[in-house]
Amino acid sequence: MTARIHEFLRTRDDDGPCLVVDRDVVRDNYLQFARSLPDTRVFYAVKANPAPELLALLAELGSCFDTASVQEMKLVLEAGATADRISFGNTIKKERDIARALELGVRLFAVDCEAEVEKIARAAELTGAQDIRVFCRILCDGAGAEWPLSRKFGCAPEMAVEVLEHAWRHGLDAYGVSFHVGSQQGNTQAWDQALAASAAIFRECAERGIRLSMVNLGGGFPTRYLKQIPAVEAYGQSIFEALSRHFGNRIPETIIEPGRGMVGNAGVIEAEVVLVSRKSRAEDEIRWVYLDIGKFGGLAETMDEAIRYAIRTPHDGEASTPCVLAGPTCDSADVMYERIPYDLPVSLSIGDKVLIEGTGAYTSTYAAVAFNGFPPLKSYVI
Amino acid sequence: MTARIHEFLRTRDDDGPCLVVDRDVVRDNYLQFARSLPDTRVFYAVKANPAPELLALLAELGSCFDTASVQEMKLVLEAGATADRISFGNTIKKERDIARALELGVRLFAVDCEAEVEKIARAAELTGAQDIRVFCRILCDGAGAEWPLSRKFGCAPEMAVEVLEHAWRHGLDAYGVSFHVGSQQGNTQAWDQALAASAAIFRECAERGIRLSMVNLGGGFPTRYLKQIPAVEAYGQSIFEALSRHFGNRIPETIIEPGRGMVGNAGVIEAEVVLVSRKSRAEDEIRWVYLDIGKFGGLAETMDEAIRYAIRTPHDGEASTPCVLAGPTCDSADVMYERIPYDLPVSLSIGDKVLIEGTGAYTSTYAAVAFNGFPPLKSYVI
Repeated sequence: MTARIHEFLRTRDDDGPCLVVDRDVVRDNYLQFARSLPDTRVFYAVKANPAPELLALLAELGSCFDTASVQEMKLVLEAGATADRISFGNTIKKERDIARALELGVRLFAVDCEAEVEKIARAAELTGAQDIRVFCRILCDGAGAEWPLSRKFGCAPEMAVEVLEHAWRHGLDAYGVSFHVGSQQGNTQAWDQALAASAAIFRECAERGIRLSMVNLGGGFPTRYLKQIPAVEAYGQSIFEALSRHFGNRIPETIIEPGRGMVGNAGVIEAEVVLVSRKSRAEDEIRWVYLDIGKFGGLAETMDEAIRYAIRTPHDGEASTPCVLAGPTCDSADVMYERIPYDLPVSLSIGDKVLIEGTGAYTSTYAAVAFNGFPPLKSYVI
Repeated sequence: MTARIHEFLRTRDDDGPCLVVDRDVVRDNYLQFARSLPDTRVFYAVKANPAPELLALLAELGSCFDTASVQEMKLVLEAGATADRISFGNTIKKERDIARALELGVRLFAVDCEAEVEKIARAAELTGAQDIRVFCRILCDGAGAEWPLSRKFGCAPEMAVEVLEHAWRHGLDAYGVSFHVGSQQGNTQAWDQALAASAAIFRECAERGIRLSMVNLGGGFPTRYLKQIPAVEAYGQSIFEALSRHFGNRIPETIIEPGRGMVGNAGVIEAEVVLVSRKSRAEDEIRWVYLDIGKFGGLAETMDEAIRYAIRTPHDGEASTPCVLAGPTCDSADVMYERIPYDLPVSLSIGDKVLIEGTGAYTSTYAAVAFNGFPPLKSYVI
């Protein structure tokens, strides 16, 4: 919560929940990443928050961009970055979207299977695009991460060698390896095992005559919610040590893809308490607090109570009581914290404004388009 | 899947996933409800699908409307229904939204606690609105329902009596009781217990000199996904018997709020297979199928694998294999069926179109506004 956000909210006169993101915090975060991982290029994960003002700021600072779709690429180009600073990081792409990306000048693509390589090869032939770099994503177990990591992206390391060879045989540049240690990763050592696997893939490819160049270290850099998190420097140090351990004096080119770590702590959502109630007169009956934002209004990451945001109220410091926290929709699944109730002041009342901190990432674009008739989350970048 | 939808999709030439809803099916469903529960007024749950064409059709057929927000009320009014056919069914309302509803002429409100009653009383004073009917929602255990029902809405039956008396003392019309047996309710007897509790509330209120008039039977009427479901007539019969059992010859006025049951089976989503892959060469490695729609693109009800849609492919009838089914976003949580994999034809290939049936309800409005840059689900009513 910055003084600038505080001032903006003080003078705000429109209605309904809103997200406010402070550009100064994003700038600080970018510089911190650049300083802590000095030999690594930063590819901001646009999906975390694609607000044009943030993309323009990051483009100006020299950031590159990890994009999930052609629409995101267009936003990045409109924000002033050139296509050589864009990666198409989604391993699940329509062939016609790959062709569109190539036409836009994008030359860096993620894959995790041979079928995806073949799509890129065909799109390259169609468009006549040259010098296309392909990196293969490998599976990573994600232990220590707070946002669930599934097996959705990546393949087994053994298979990655074949996928990269497949790319090479199709005239693409087998450029490297990527992995993701899991979003909101609290363990600075989490990169070690995947870097060991990456180094093995580099060796195996070299034996087949294919020289890989790059390791994409993915995202996973956390933002602070309720718990303390390690500093970015600690991640940089740990990653550098793991790189040295597994690659010796042949450390490859590296890139990172921070999303949450870049914008999470730059944003605050202001919401309103719509109702405070109990379900019965029983003494041990828990209190329910309903806000005008919930799981379908931008706080999708409370799914399975994965992300636990810090919530500030006008009554902080007063006596508190455990509450179930729920959203405003007529959907019974729109409950944010129930399994582990959230302590909130007893004096918290209908009409009070609360601040949900660390909400700069994965909120505005997650909001449902019109569920229950509620408009999507408003977003301001200041 | 109707012939009209089939024909529409055959000649469709735009790109990306889309929902197509057949008005004829919605008309049939409405008439079926009206026939099966002849003494019950139908309040369509607008949140299930607020497409203007559907609201206009239902308004013309004589339906009333259960709304979750002022925005939904406005849609209903624009569709040609009058305010006396609208219920503000959300128990979580801002006082200024209650005032807006009163100004629009709405006079029927759900509550589940005294604080909500007081908001309505204050809004009534502010606007000068008269003859405001209030019904109190009670908790219901939802056993037999497929979409998770939480304790989010409703209060204990004992407390409902106090809430209704509170309304009465504040000059509101203590109109009745509501409950919800859980969405996609497969048990036709599920209404019995809640009707017993409702009858007890009617008696208790009568002893306090308050004559309740109405029981809102809620929704819960299922649509057919993969499993057979009972016919609407069976629900009507079972509800009528339970009403007779608990209210004797003083059966109250009743209303129902079908949403899924009204529009679910009227809609089909056409999606495209973006990728089919495996994660390793292991013989028992499961196949992954990625569509261009997922949990954040409209299929939010696959959350926790709650709703299992019927999926038709161009290769149905051929040899099949269990698949993990996932969406197109760079989000590891965007996986629809994994715990219980989905059998799909071995010959299903990249670029194939699939039809996801029973998707007329709770899809279009659930779609994220722009997650990963993907546009919200397109929707056509034919």
